[in-house]
Amino acid sequence: MAKKKTATKKKAAAKKNTSRRKKSPTAGKIVGLAESVGTTASKKKDPAIKIPLRTLSNAKYSKSKRIIEMGNKTATRNFFDLNKAKSFMQTLLIASGCKKLIDEDKNVSIRGLYYLSKHTIPGTKEKTFDDQKESDPIIEDLEVALESLREELHVYASSRGNIAGNLTVVSQGDEIDLRRMGAGGMGIPSIVEPDVFQLKKCEAKFILHVEKDTVWQRFNEDKFWKKNNCILTHGGGQPPRGVRRLLHRMHKELKLPVYCLLDNDPWGYYIYSVIKQGSINLAFESKRMAVPDAKFIGVRSRDFEEFGLTDDVKIAIDDKDIKRSKQILNYPWFKGKKDWEKEFAQMLKQGFKMEVESLLTKSISFVTESYVPQKLKQRGKWLD
Amino acid sequence: MAKKKTATKKKAAAKKNTSRRKKSPTAGKIVGLAESVGTTASKKKDPAIKIPLRTLSNAKYSKSKRIIEMGNKTATRNFFDLNKAKSFMQTLLIASGCKKLIDEDKNVSIRGLYYLSKHTIPGTKEKTFDDQKESDPIIEDLEVALESLREELHVYASSRGNIAGNLTVVSQGDEIDLRRMGAGGMGIPSIVEPDVFQLKKCEAKFILHVEKDTVWQRFNEDKFWKKNNCILTHGGGQPPRGVRRLLHRMHKELKLPVYCLLDNDPWGYYIYSVIKQGSINLAFESKRMAVPDAKFIGVRSRDFEEFGLTDDVKIAIDDKDIKRSKQILNYPWFKGKKDWEKEFAQMLKQGFKMEVESLLTKSISFVTESYVPQKLKQRGKWLD
Repeated sequence: MAKKKTATKKKAAAKKNTSRRKKSPTAGKIVGLAESVGTTASKKKDPAIKIPLRTLSNAKYSKSKRIIEMGNKTATRNFFDLNKAKSFMQTLLIASGCKKLIDEDKNVSIRGLYYLSKHTIPGTKEKTFDDQKESDPIIEDLEVALESLREELHVYASSRGNIAGNLTVVSQGDEIDLRRMGAGGMGIPSIVEPDVFQLKKCEAKFILHVEKDTVWQRFNEDKFWKKNNCILTHGGGQPPRGVRRLLHRMHKELKLPVYCLLDNDPWGYYIYSVIKQGSINLAFESKRMAVPDAKFIGVRSRDFEEFGLTDDVKIAIDDKDIKRSKQILNYPWFKGKKDWEKEFAQMLKQGFKMEVESLLTKSISFVTESYVPQKLKQRGKWLD
Repeated sequence: MAKKKTATKKKAAAKKNTSRRKKSPTAGKIVGLAESVGTTASKKKDPAIKIPLRTLSNAKYSKSKRIIEMGNKTATRNFFDLNKAKSFMQTLLIASGCKKLIDEDKNVSIRGLYYLSKHTIPGTKEKTFDDQKESDPIIEDLEVALESLREELHVYASSRGNIAGNLTVVSQGDEIDLRRMGAGGMGIPSIVEPDVFQLKKCEAKFILHVEKDTVWQRFNEDKFWKKNNCILTHGGGQPPRGVRRLLHRMHKELKLPVYCLLDNDPWGYYIYSVIKQGSINLAFESKRMAVPDAKFIGVRSRDFEEFGLTDDVKIAIDDKDIKRSKQILNYPWFKGKKDWEKEFAQMLKQGFKMEVESLLTKSISFVTESYVPQKLKQRGKWLD
């Protein structure tokens, strides 16, 4: 009896695995990759993997889609090339690790995948990976080679960022009312793909994304999202993938505009750029993460005068800020944007940058009660 | 009519403010501080504030309470002392900012309080604060001088850390079921004082605290807290105050043991030490934050052999690790603890450290399905 049960269980598990494998197109792609290597090898030819380049030179800005896309430059990783044999082997190891994760329906961090794929090559003292610095880029290589999101490879980034507002979501089967999340909000999971994370009832009319958790806390404490019928998110600085993917999904599926409240400095501007049109390194994921219609509502350099701020908000810009500003203005997706050129020019001319938190010099809730409500009405003054 | 309404509203607000002021012993202490300065000044004497020292030399380990406490060394900050006049003025400014926050029943971050207290002294170009580096220590000075928690001064730290498990909590009036929080868990608020955060229904039998969010995700994904009837927390490395205060409260009020799963390195050991008996800098808060009964269940140096781990888990220790280990062993609360001395000695002798995530080299869920369940049964092998 007990034996039978175990056998049945095993069968059921096997069936479950098979059906999952069938369901996962990513697992299919990994098998395809492995088979092509195998076939080439059995023909006594040199097996190779083509990896699209993840560099600025291979990142193209699509004016029609208004996102950064990956070009078609590739590098070939051959097995019979002393310089590339190791990374060839590492690519297959990471692929094999991901296949395992998909089959077992489990997810690990990039550090976890490093450990999962690390071993000593029998008969040698050579390790497959000496450092996570070796495995991280290989994971990204695999993402682009297979045209799969990291989340589809069952690998998660560290989770950062919180959410609260007039929305109900379902995460791993749990229905969560984001209207009743107290002071902390819900932690935004790093994997928010539709199969594990769904958007349900929503009254909100827009999304306000702020840079840091401390600013988020101010808005949440002042019940901004309740008073203004919106959804409030932050990404702990440069938002991780989960936060970007969620912004993208809420924008697309719930048809909500996204307004960004970020610092008046090159860092804040670049965060906006990544939310809006994607990043260079993850150009291949822009179409699933970017929000080309996102607006930058503040903080702008002109706000210093317009809102009668005092010298107390000023943080002197340094050489790094100047260098980074020039770099950003040179990106194809900033080039020729008059408003942005003016914004950067004014910041550099004024010689100082400002943080959202500096609005506290006016009064504690100035930012939630006056500044943002006023900004939301000034459509013409948003940066785009 | 409209006028009357406004008048009534204002009255109500004033009443609310008065009652809040009455309720806050911290506001009373600030007023007391201000009055003593005023009285001294009106007597044409030199006003002064006594600030207890927050140094290792003034941190005492209480063997009976098993926590780090602050000694009674103090420094006096005089108004008529050129070297101290500025910090005297800054102390009163920060106190005044906190009084404002308490009166308005609002909270800000330490960065926020910096901006709130910063202004240019009329008739000069002198700023009250040039940098947040000046205001942060003053906030801590005030905490010890008034014997008030930062949270009672209405100042929050950045929030880090998540929680899920068999517990219901109420945060800012919202009832939150931590059994149904999906993949992300609830963000642990930075202020979890009883007036704004309450612990309700709890079936859990213990708390498992892990170091990092990626490890937390592994345990949450494997539904460890459901299978083992517990509460699962992480603090994103060294846990911030909110997480420590919540661990303390859950341990005390719900009578739950706290088990820590941290990295096998000086950093992980020190995190344990802070959770257990408090930190040097915040010694005055130990009694409200420390969990003297917390246990360190792993990762231990002996685990390498006991669990048959391979070389793949090894991270070579460096000079910094050696130096930090010696420093930690010299703290009065480690001194003479044989088990800890042996643990450090073994780590240094083995010449490597290990992360919790390295247990993935065994298998994906080894840590949740074998390692921790086994560790929980080995009471004799816990570090204390």
